[in-house]
Amino acid sequence: MTSPAGHRTVRRHNLALVLGCVAEAEPLSRARVADRTGLTRGTVSSLVDELIEARLLTELAVERGGTGRPAAPLQLNRAGPAGLGLELGVDRLGACVVDLTGAVRAQVVVPSEHRDTDPAAVLDALAALGEQVRTAAGLPLAGTHLAVPGIVGDRAVVRLPNLPRWTGVDAAGGIAERLGVPAGVANEADLAALAELWFGQAPADFLHVSAGIGIGAGIVLGGELFRGAGGRAGELGHVVVEPDGPACRCGGRGCLEEVVRLAEPHRTARAFGVALVGAVALMDVRTIVLGGLDPAVAEPLRAAVAAELARLDPPVAVALGDPAAGGALRGAAATVVRALVRNP
Amino acid sequence: MTSPAGHRTVRRHNLALVLGCVAEAEPLSRARVADRTGLTRGTVSSLVDELIEARLLTELAVERGGTGRPAAPLQLNRAGPAGLGLELGVDRLGACVVDLTGAVRAQVVVPSEHRDTDPAAVLDALAALGEQVRTAAGLPLAGTHLAVPGIVGDRAVVRLPNLPRWTGVDAAGGIAERLGVPAGVANEADLAALAELWFGQAPADFLHVSAGIGIGAGIVLGGELFRGAGGRAGELGHVVVEPDGPACRCGGRGCLEEVVRLAEPHRTARAFGVALVGAVALMDVRTIVLGGLDPAVAEPLRAAVAAELARLDPPVAVALGDPAAGGALRGAAATVVRALVRNP
Repeated sequence: MTSPAGHRTVRRHNLALVLGCVAEAEPLSRARVADRTGLTRGTVSSLVDELIEARLLTELAVERGGTGRPAAPLQLNRAGPAGLGLELGVDRLGACVVDLTGAVRAQVVVPSEHRDTDPAAVLDALAALGEQVRTAAGLPLAGTHLAVPGIVGDRAVVRLPNLPRWTGVDAAGGIAERLGVPAGVANEADLAALAELWFGQAPADFLHVSAGIGIGAGIVLGGELFRGAGGRAGELGHVVVEPDGPACRCGGRGCLEEVVRLAEPHRTARAFGVALVGAVALMDVRTIVLGGLDPAVAEPLRAAVAAELARLDPPVAVALGDPAAGGALRGAAATVVRALVRNP
Repeated sequence: MTSPAGHRTVRRHNLALVLGCVAEAEPLSRARVADRTGLTRGTVSSLVDELIEARLLTELAVERGGTGRPAAPLQLNRAGPAGLGLELGVDRLGACVVDLTGAVRAQVVVPSEHRDTDPAAVLDALAALGEQVRTAAGLPLAGTHLAVPGIVGDRAVVRLPNLPRWTGVDAAGGIAERLGVPAGVANEADLAALAELWFGQAPADFLHVSAGIGIGAGIVLGGELFRGAGGRAGELGHVVVEPDGPACRCGGRGCLEEVVRLAEPHRTARAFGVALVGAVALMDVRTIVLGGLDPAVAEPLRAAVAAELARLDPPVAVALGDPAAGGALRGAAATVVRALVRNP
């Protein structure tokens, strides 16, 4: 609460209110939007016109019911601004375009061995994949977001444990320059959690475990990504689960990631149990979603982890991620269009 | 963003803006308030008049400088609505009144053995202490807040581990009825953390450990109490620090609280280290404040815990709580007046 509210603030608030209302329950007529938002019909019409002009909304052809008045349902513009997601994996690269609704319109994922490659060359390859899906989707890009397996700052990579050449690389700047659109960068575990929130079966509060070459978590509270104090929340892989356990590359001992990397199934489930009991105690999350697991081991591990948490009261649900949610790549693309809908 | 912004929303926003502005930097003239908020002088004057009418602000007598125009500095009204804090400890009861600025105007803490006492009789005793400090302070009460050592819901106690008779007791309702003012109830570790935020030396992001008969934590992120998904965040005492350790009353094994209860100093520091490494990994907090410690052991324990966390990068600061902050009791009282200033 640092600035006075005035007419411009109110109009911006109300534009987002109308767009969010349509996004949540499309198709809707202007009259229904007025009912749902509490705005007058005149105000709604003026706001809708502005949103149509900006290609964020479209109005479908007039439908005539048997008895009712003509309705002109509004919906998000499928031909409007789109989001490009890019993914820098340890052993693959990906690109995907989603439209304003978050639907995937084009996607490509390729295996890639780039541990020893110059980041500039990898950014070239990512940009080429981005151009490929942009052409395939045929939509105007509002921007792009890059998923990386590690710690990021506002624009640059801080450190990717499995891709040491990326330390300090201005990944967002490099992508923006190559593709000519605004770009952001985010941790892949966070983006995978958001994909699960937006497109999967997860509730508004959950901890999403991304188990891949490393172990990270994305934490969603109240339908929003939880970033913690410094933006690096969710480092589940470095919670200590065996205080006298093996040394970890982080300098600690008995970190979850290291115990899981070395261990047999039973010890793995127990290690997840210890780490997740701590997460539940500290953050009071009641749903754990396990993502990124090999399908052959996913259900047995889920059941074993659930057994480790069975004593907790209130109970904690342990579920597998929804394969249809789309993971970090779709989460990255949808981050772009979600930001646009929130703040048109 | 669920309701349209209109004139009433704007006025309420701007009342809070003006009051918050004065609270932050009093004394301030109307002209300075206009400069700082970006509101016009006419709007500020109308809002200030309303706040003076509500006894939230006062205007000091006109001061005349050598050359300047007369200034009439505004400040929070020290004779305006006050907050009553109450504390139900395991072995003591307390009451305290703070004025709108958060300054303690009357306080009493008495030892009390009430583990086996009917909660209704304890509420009677708390209310009597409340009346005593209300009379001593001589201020009108805006409301009261009760600090309890355990888990609370919106109004009622869910469970106090060391006071089992309180399970399900409508503590807020019982206090409101006895004192005739609106009442709330909150966890004492959360309130102690808020006191440290408001009146101590803590930064905007920290984890505050309340080590007493049990171990809890209050987590502050971005200057706000972090409640987690279900409102029970900060159960640091039940993070697992020795997976093969002693059984805990919670049903777990090797919980921090149980290890600390049993252990020698070195093992205590190590146990805090394991739990706090996990908290840092999950929530990215970089300041730990240890509160509620016996002064004789506080500094050695702080130094030993800091040594356990010394390997972390970015670094984590470990500090002792500020004795002047006032703990859960003042935190409870200040919760009342802070809510009033935020939402006048």
